[in-house]
Amino acid sequence: MTQLTIVEDVERKSFAAMHCSIAQTLEVIGEWWTMLIVRDAFLGVTRFDQMQERLGISRNVLNQRLAHLVAHGVLEKVAYSDRPLRYDYLLTDKGRDLFSILTSMRQWGDKYAAPDGAPLRLRHKGCGRYTEAALHCDKCGEPIDSGNVRAVAGPGDLERIVASTR
Amino acid sequence: MTQLTIVEDVERKSFAAMHCSIAQTLEVIGEWWTMLIVRDAFLGVTRFDQMQERLGISRNVLNQRLAHLVAHGVLEKVAYSDRPLRYDYLLTDKGRDLFSILTSMRQWGDKYAAPDGAPLRLRHKGCGRYTEAALHCDKCGEPIDSGNVRAVAGPGDLERIVASTR
Repeated sequence: MTQLTIVEDVERKSFAAMHCSIAQTLEVIGEWWTMLIVRDAFLGVTRFDQMQERLGISRNVLNQRLAHLVAHGVLEKVAYSDRPLRYDYLLTDKGRDLFSILTSMRQWGDKYAAPDGAPLRLRHKGCGRYTEAALHCDKCGEPIDSGNVRAVAGPGDLERIVASTR
Repeated sequence: MTQLTIVEDVERKSFAAMHCSIAQTLEVIGEWWTMLIVRDAFLGVTRFDQMQERLGISRNVLNQRLAHLVAHGVLEKVAYSDRPLRYDYLLTDKGRDLFSILTSMRQWGDKYAAPDGAPLRLRHKGCGRYTEAALHCDKCGEPIDSGNVRAVAGPGDLERIVASTR
């Protein structure tokens, strides 16, 4: 695959102190490459060399990203060899809970940026068909979209994210 | 809000040439701050000064991110004043389709990184209750998770993202 390498000075702020769950999620998965590592983990790619080859990423950057994901409990290291010491990187429950984000990202990309067709499809084992996953309300089961919900400040809205706009 | 500023040399690759819909989505929304701008757009924050104040971001970085989102058709600029010339930044249909990603990110953060409770909740207008959105199969309506689907190569799998792992 052909890729441009872009070296940037990026001034970024840590989102750790923000009382916003999206900012908190970005603190964990917002680095470049991180969601592609998570994608590969869901596809059964668990070893460093495999990931490095598939992603075309430097060993140094991959090491940093994996250490970050392990530190945040998204992946866990499980030794598969003692001599030399080698690890599988496996999704934890917290990591598997990224499935909704990953699936939503994939479907948006399929819709807007996949001129050759979807690279990957999911077959739902339950009904045997290719599935497009859609958000539904856990209370009534009806589909949820931005037009049929209203944002309300919760107990953790310490910076008036919501109240300041409504 | 207290925030650390981290200046990094980031070597990143453009994902534009990758045949992966997640990579394509990262190409549009993967920059730091971008999803917080999209979050604010959903909350009705449409003007530059408002965004700048809420995000605590430099005017320069905010300008770059907004121009990127406009170029990719996620936001559109609509003039609300001629003298001086001023714009509202409004979500397009493509931008509103980021709702599933944003909602999934928010819920993951609520679950794993919201010690004071959820900053924001969504009330479903249909049933009147606070909703947790969950992915369901569009074919049979049953819940979808990583355990009940199987990844299958689609027509756009030009780099054998799937086939190489199964």
